[in-house]
Amino acid sequence: MILSALLTSVGINLGLCFLFFTLYSILRKQPGNITVYAPRLVVEGKVKEGGHFNLERLLPNAGWVRQAWQPSEEDFLSNSGLDAFVFMRIFIFSLKVFSFGGIIGTFILLPINYMGSQLSDDSDFQHKSLDSFSISNVNNGSNRLWVHFSAAYIFTGIVCYLLYYEYLYLSSKRITYFYSSKPQPQQFTLLVRGIPVLPGSTCHDTVERFFQEYHPSTYLSHSVVRRTNKLQSLVNDADKLYKKLTHLKQKNDAPERQRRDGCLGLFGRKVDTLDHYERSLGDIEDNVRMEQSSLEAKELQAAFVSFKTRFGAAIALHIQESVNPTEWITEKAPEPHDVYWPFFTVSFIKRWISKLVVYVACAFITVLFLIPVAIVQGLTHLDQLEMWFPFLKGILRLSIVSQVITGYLPSLILQLFLSFVPPTMIMLSSLQGYISWSQIQKSACTKVLWFTIWNIFFANVLSGSALYRVNVFLEPKEIPRILAEAVPSQASFFIAYVVTSGWTAIASELFRLTTLLSNFISRTFCRNNDDDFEPPLIPYHSEIPRIRLFGVLGVTYFILAPLILPFLLIYFCLGYIIFRNQLLKVYVPKYETGGKFWPTVHSSTIFSLILMHIIAIGIFGLKKLPLASILILPLPILTLLFNEYCQKRFFPIFKNYSAECLIKKDRADQNEHNMSEFYDKLANAYNDPALMRVKYSERSDSHRSPLLHSSE
Amino acid sequence: MILSALLTSVGINLGLCFLFFTLYSILRKQPGNITVYAPRLVVEGKVKEGGHFNLERLLPNAGWVRQAWQPSEEDFLSNSGLDAFVFMRIFIFSLKVFSFGGIIGTFILLPINYMGSQLSDDSDFQHKSLDSFSISNVNNGSNRLWVHFSAAYIFTGIVCYLLYYEYLYLSSKRITYFYSSKPQPQQFTLLVRGIPVLPGSTCHDTVERFFQEYHPSTYLSHSVVRRTNKLQSLVNDADKLYKKLTHLKQKNDAPERQRRDGCLGLFGRKVDTLDHYERSLGDIEDNVRMEQSSLEAKELQAAFVSFKTRFGAAIALHIQESVNPTEWITEKAPEPHDVYWPFFTVSFIKRWISKLVVYVACAFITVLFLIPVAIVQGLTHLDQLEMWFPFLKGILRLSIVSQVITGYLPSLILQLFLSFVPPTMIMLSSLQGYISWSQIQKSACTKVLWFTIWNIFFANVLSGSALYRVNVFLEPKEIPRILAEAVPSQASFFIAYVVTSGWTAIASELFRLTTLLSNFISRTFCRNNDDDFEPPLIPYHSEIPRIRLFGVLGVTYFILAPLILPFLLIYFCLGYIIFRNQLLKVYVPKYETGGKFWPTVHSSTIFSLILMHIIAIGIFGLKKLPLASILILPLPILTLLFNEYCQKRFFPIFKNYSAECLIKKDRADQNEHNMSEFYDKLANAYNDPALMRVKYSERSDSHRSPLLHSSE
Repeated sequence: MILSALLTSVGINLGLCFLFFTLYSILRKQPGNITVYAPRLVVEGKVKEGGHFNLERLLPNAGWVRQAWQPSEEDFLSNSGLDAFVFMRIFIFSLKVFSFGGIIGTFILLPINYMGSQLSDDSDFQHKSLDSFSISNVNNGSNRLWVHFSAAYIFTGIVCYLLYYEYLYLSSKRITYFYSSKPQPQQFTLLVRGIPVLPGSTCHDTVERFFQEYHPSTYLSHSVVRRTNKLQSLVNDADKLYKKLTHLKQKNDAPERQRRDGCLGLFGRKVDTLDHYERSLGDIEDNVRMEQSSLEAKELQAAFVSFKTRFGAAIALHIQESVNPTEWITEKAPEPHDVYWPFFTVSFIKRWISKLVVYVACAFITVLFLIPVAIVQGLTHLDQLEMWFPFLKGILRLSIVSQVITGYLPSLILQLFLSFVPPTMIMLSSLQGYISWSQIQKSACTKVLWFTIWNIFFANVLSGSALYRVNVFLEPKEIPRILAEAVPSQASFFIAYVVTSGWTAIASELFRLTTLLSNFISRTFCRNNDDDFEPPLIPYHSEIPRIRLFGVLGVTYFILAPLILPFLLIYFCLGYIIFRNQLLKVYVPKYETGGKFWPTVHSSTIFSLILMHIIAIGIFGLKKLPLASILILPLPILTLLFNEYCQKRFFPIFKNYSAECLIKKDRADQNEHNMSEFYDKLANAYNDPALMRVKYSERSDSHRSPLLHSSE
Repeated sequence: MILSALLTSVGINLGLCFLFFTLYSILRKQPGNITVYAPRLVVEGKVKEGGHFNLERLLPNAGWVRQAWQPSEEDFLSNSGLDAFVFMRIFIFSLKVFSFGGIIGTFILLPINYMGSQLSDDSDFQHKSLDSFSISNVNNGSNRLWVHFSAAYIFTGIVCYLLYYEYLYLSSKRITYFYSSKPQPQQFTLLVRGIPVLPGSTCHDTVERFFQEYHPSTYLSHSVVRRTNKLQSLVNDADKLYKKLTHLKQKNDAPERQRRDGCLGLFGRKVDTLDHYERSLGDIEDNVRMEQSSLEAKELQAAFVSFKTRFGAAIALHIQESVNPTEWITEKAPEPHDVYWPFFTVSFIKRWISKLVVYVACAFITVLFLIPVAIVQGLTHLDQLEMWFPFLKGILRLSIVSQVITGYLPSLILQLFLSFVPPTMIMLSSLQGYISWSQIQKSACTKVLWFTIWNIFFANVLSGSALYRVNVFLEPKEIPRILAEAVPSQASFFIAYVVTSGWTAIASELFRLTTLLSNFISRTFCRNNDDDFEPPLIPYHSEIPRIRLFGVLGVTYFILAPLILPFLLIYFCLGYIIFRNQLLKVYVPKYETGGKFWPTVHSSTIFSLILMHIIAIGIFGLKKLPLASILILPLPILTLLFNEYCQKRFFPIFKNYSAECLIKKDRADQNEHNMSEFYDKLANAYNDPALMRVKYSERSDSHRSPLLHSSE
């Protein structure tokens, strides 16, 4: 790629971004789009829909930038929760890292690279290949490479310093956030699995007996988990019907209530849909009650056990309960509305095996993903298509059609396949036996991250047959050399990738095209009300890996092709302001992991540093500077030691709260809050939603109330 | 090696063993040797020294075998403790494994190997090479190899089954042993390190305040650890002098008390040694008191904290105490007399770094051990010796001398170097920051185990340059092939190794030659009393690795050369009876880890199985049966999964006791024992022995009493 081509690409993409921003600043002011661009504010009742038309609505402005910029960190934290705060810190951290990196890169490394003459590119500045700005252009054996060598050390030092202080800062935030939180059920509750129920006894009695025996002073109550998959689907059906019914009744529109009962509502005799729905609802309700009454038999060997204090729960959590470590396994309970009821595998062995199977499946998908993609892409070759669909022959011969097909279809197919990855990983993680959505999301985030790094970074770098790629990692000695040969040559591709894929992705995140379209369609054709309007949750599991990929690219290419850094800086700036806007206005913080995504970010940064070092070892070897190659060896070791230290120093804080925290918080609560009221709420907090009493027919407002009490 | 040579070697070594046994059965009955062959009984007062001469003493008999065989497992357990019990279970487990293996090996695999004709060895039976009995003799591509294939599966299944039940059995023993134990200080006490002492406060106050704040209901007392290296050496000097003094006074032998005060006691004026010693002792005592009084300043940021219940201690152990995980680090306290006072590094970072350094040093020693040995062995070449010591030329030319030097010196040097390994590993482990002798020994055991497997097994198998050997492990793909080529060819060496090294080692363990000699010398020349007679502790860290090496050999060679199995069975039979004898009569159980050596045995067995599978993969490939090579792949995976399961199922039991156990035991104690008396003892249990009041001059019987109370 030559410089002018890059500049053209930058120009086009900047233009696209501005177009998106302009459209956004106009569209966001249209009342119909309020559920697209400010659903969170709608849910929180901070804005109302509607309003009169005026000219100002059609003028683009940048008011949203100011609004997104304004809130202080503290306000943002209390407003959007710790997870969102940590998410924004990824951008701040990346900005810090790449500002330092960018200064060193553009003012020191870039001139040195450009002054080299290894590639002997004699074209004028505009037609220079981008490779002239990369380390490949430095002459072999040149002493100037020692500048790159020092830069690697300095940059690693800076990144580690920033990582350390970021971890320290977020740890303190996490503790502060905990201290400032109100008493929450999940802080007092554990999920206990593998309860050994003796024949002739029930799970309920066994739990009661065990905890009253061994934790008499802190045990409060429990609720046994039951298998409710069937019931759940019945309740869902009933919910849907109930909504339709309410909707119909509100309309009070006789003609609409008439429908034919035959095929597609077009044939057969006319019936009153209201009557019809009410009858179906009654049937379902009967089924639900029948199902609920037989639930005693479906007790799983698991229970949510609540304690009087957080410290009491921590004691039961940390000390192995039973002599047999596969029984009475305790784990922290998630927030009540975060519990993932459908997949509640209890048996120790089953969960262990499903975990192993998921790991294998995940590794399989990650490593071999590109093979089916390549095969499908191969099918889009013109001659193949002509052979399969002979009637298309005429159209395919048109030059514009053939250009579109060969030019865009393969990348479209890749994008299509890629878009299936986050849901697939979510599915795999949910099979793994996690008990909450937030855990599933966190685990899927890690999976998608490795998937992205492998399939975007390594697959592009090590293009060749899939088998060859896997082989590289069976010969550890060869890795630095192979990477050092392959990575710099892909520099221009990745610079273009940042500009096209990165900038556009972040702008379209703001614009929310698909939501906008679906909102438009539903408003125009279905005339749906906003009754069933669900505010979106931020998909951390697909966003964090994407952002981290750019971080990995930046660190890896820092000494190889520092030209990438300014473009990354623009990406992170855009990302910061846009995601701040989205988190304040669009995404609703429903679950809170307490910042547990940060360790993933930390380890991926360490990984990128190590990758940089390995490539540096190889590149100094290729550049005939073996001494530098050897002297860089301590760097990955020191980095790993640093990581090890951070894991020991900070990771425990992100895993569990300390005795000091828990006891302080417990004592503060005893003084501040009305705890007996909270305990009453706690006792029913972890009832399965499918077990609530069904009351649709009576049409009460709170149409479900607890049917099965935990104490029955 | 040919069959007749092996039989000769077996004959010689059997003869040697019988000689040892005969000598043992005679010598053990001599009164002078009682401290050599029954020191434990002497210490426990079960036998008395002396007795009249009679003829029976000179007749060899096998009464000791009966005595060793007689006690039931329960008696042995209560007599020698759980560690010794677990040690004996290693023999029982190995006997079980190799009985099964031996039956399959000798009756199925051996005939099949012998019937093959790959090696076309036409010599008569007596002169057959041992290789004819190994898998190398089976024809390439022969379907008979499927028998070996099935044997690998069956044997792995049996070993895993036995491993599982052994782990289960020992877990239950560990729990029973815990239930039957009396209240012991270590069960109620934790060592707390990284105490953040604020300026202006003392460590003592900080600990008191912290535990009274956060564990008010269970905290009992504590004693701060002080740096006492200097004091310790002074006290040791005083102890020695005191012993000499008492000895002299008892003798009341005037001439002996006279000594010249000059060089070597030969010149100078005559002094009364009694006076002289008493004066020195007085000086040292003054020094000790001075040192003790300045100890307040030498407080380390560590303390032994005792709790009222075991469960209370477990709570403080398992829950991270402070927000900063590098402060208030808790760990289980060892038995009071097991504490390793000299090396008490407190800082988190220092301990972490010394741990890393030790790991690196240990890996370095393990991998590169053979290089210095080979160099030193090279120096013993005759021409080298002649060049260095020209005056020896005459002697070296004698054929007998040259044979001894070239034949025995190299192996003598190897043995000499090897004998330094266990003490070196003990030293390394003690630098690692462990706080008790038993932990140091356990850690050294693992180190010596890997050292032995690498330097005896791999170094012999992969003979070649050291660099070449390390290289193999950088090319994982090649490992099975290289091992499959190298391992079977060393079969006859290892069969001979079992017979010579194994049998002799176990017989000399019974005979205790060095102790016998040193006892004889000290009795004859020094006329020492048995006052300072120290009963020996069993060196688990050198014995377990040796025994496990034979286990690894047996499993690895099971399908390759089953001829090794009968010899191993004899080894384990001898070992069982001899070590039972030694544990009952010789070794004193001083520290108790509660069977914590078993997980090491378990993992080394799993390692040997995996090694066998890897070699099998290679050997089926070499034998042109690639299908078997592929079909054996699930075996190591299944074995690793089995191991993973065992780690989850049993390892936690060997690490900590469960809440159930602790609470039951606490309640039982409250009913059974006079706990307030025990609490009083507990408060002073963890005082540094160097801090006891020195009272030599007053000559009281209990010549040291606590000087510094924990509560001061």
